[in-house]
Amino acid sequence: MTPEEKDNMSFVQKLENIIKKNNTLLCVGLDPDSNKIPKNLMSLKDPLFEFNKAIIDATHNLVCAYKPQIAGYSALGIQGLKSLLKTVSYLKKYHPDIPIILDAKRADIGKTSEKYAEEAFDIIGADAVTLNPYFGLDALEPFLRRKEKGIIILCRTSNPSASDFQDLKVNGEPLYLVVAKKIVEWNKKYHNCLMVVGATWPKQLKEVRKIAPEMFLLVPGIGSQGGDLQGTLQNGLTKNRSGLIIHTSSAIIYASSEKNFAQKAKDAAMTFKDQINKERDL
Amino acid sequence: MTPEEKDNMSFVQKLENIIKKNNTLLCVGLDPDSNKIPKNLMSLKDPLFEFNKAIIDATHNLVCAYKPQIAGYSALGIQGLKSLLKTVSYLKKYHPDIPIILDAKRADIGKTSEKYAEEAFDIIGADAVTLNPYFGLDALEPFLRRKEKGIIILCRTSNPSASDFQDLKVNGEPLYLVVAKKIVEWNKKYHNCLMVVGATWPKQLKEVRKIAPEMFLLVPGIGSQGGDLQGTLQNGLTKNRSGLIIHTSSAIIYASSEKNFAQKAKDAAMTFKDQINKERDL
Repeated sequence: MTPEEKDNMSFVQKLENIIKKNNTLLCVGLDPDSNKIPKNLMSLKDPLFEFNKAIIDATHNLVCAYKPQIAGYSALGIQGLKSLLKTVSYLKKYHPDIPIILDAKRADIGKTSEKYAEEAFDIIGADAVTLNPYFGLDALEPFLRRKEKGIIILCRTSNPSASDFQDLKVNGEPLYLVVAKKIVEWNKKYHNCLMVVGATWPKQLKEVRKIAPEMFLLVPGIGSQGGDLQGTLQNGLTKNRSGLIIHTSSAIIYASSEKNFAQKAKDAAMTFKDQINKERDL
Repeated sequence: MTPEEKDNMSFVQKLENIIKKNNTLLCVGLDPDSNKIPKNLMSLKDPLFEFNKAIIDATHNLVCAYKPQIAGYSALGIQGLKSLLKTVSYLKKYHPDIPIILDAKRADIGKTSEKYAEEAFDIIGADAVTLNPYFGLDALEPFLRRKEKGIIILCRTSNPSASDFQDLKVNGEPLYLVVAKKIVEWNKKYHNCLMVVGATWPKQLKEVRKIAPEMFLLVPGIGSQGGDLQGTLQNGLTKNRSGLIIHTSSAIIYASSEKNFAQKAKDAAMTFKDQINKERDL
């Protein structure tokens, strides 16, 4: 495959390839926090990048994607953005087959979303981005038109207050399912949609899976948020025992704050991967 | 007033002061686009900042706020962020009484929203930020806890697809009004909420105003989006002929692409200010 063909490969194709190669549905968060990363890294020139590099070096055989959450970088201004760009460059150079999901929850009126799409795909170089559906379709179209990119739209978020609006009944049906149906509809035209359903809501995940029997779902909330891994797998796996991107961050990358943090992260990632595959193999 | 007291002044107080001082409800967008700004600026070291500076120098007596939309800067990476930071520094130094609204439409799970609040308030130094309600309350709390900041939550967005979800009926009431009621409820606890209602939806603005008779509403969509200025004012002004932040961007800052762009922007801003005040004075 030429580099150009690789660039034109769709996000979902890239994802399916790495799921097969690494035999994993695990996605690891690249969310370095200077209050949490090992102290010995803090004397280096770019501690956040060095932390990410160590996590990537230790876990790249165990993951189907990496997901940096942009807020953690943006909260550090220019230096944070530099650390993020360096991390993405490192991944593209050494692990070009692993898709990068930029978690940014963006959306705005069309011409502004156009700029956000440039941020995510042209400046940062992500393969996929998370988006918020509240504005409706025209806010998502500048992203959806990027055919080779993964457009991951919030359906049911993992936080406790998700129920504030997402559970409101619209003609007897909760809003998050109305959103799910819209995403399925949009996907018929654009073919690059995925959606977010939190692992903290396994019952709701089951309902979404009925509506989107084959779509990839990004499932955050395993680990520190207390998401239900078994319920997620039982309710969310597709018929071919795939279709989920199981995301966890703190439980892996902060498994230890000692010098051996990367090895501990690898051990934790291995454990998650095996737990997931045990359920997939049933 | 000491600088410290000024720092502790609430956003709404700062807004009310400048509305009185400048006798205006006009908010101007600081949205420099290298494809649109006058060519003679492009040879300067930081064309986007120079453009903003010229717009600020020409319009600062005519506005009640400036609103940079972050996407336009983020789409340019590190240089874009530098231009934004320089613009905010310039405003804080020369026009500290004019509030800065960062248009970012952020929201995420609590610990991530915490980071976004740091981005908006600590790194960029905004006085207020726009947020998306889809996640529910706990996603907004890290912002709401910043008592002196303005927390401007989307209610009815200005784009055509706003109706996709915001018009869905929940117990006979459209979602955007359910959101409006929630914002009013949250404001009783936090006292720093505002909401966004697009000028493209004057009827909906009337309904929101009934629910929030005194709250400040940020109203985008005047100008290139075709919003209805007169309908906005008739339906949105509070009893004391205030309560609106009327935002426009392209129609002012791109009034001309010639060397006299700043003067033309001033003229356009003056016209908008006068049109608005004519209705306020009725």
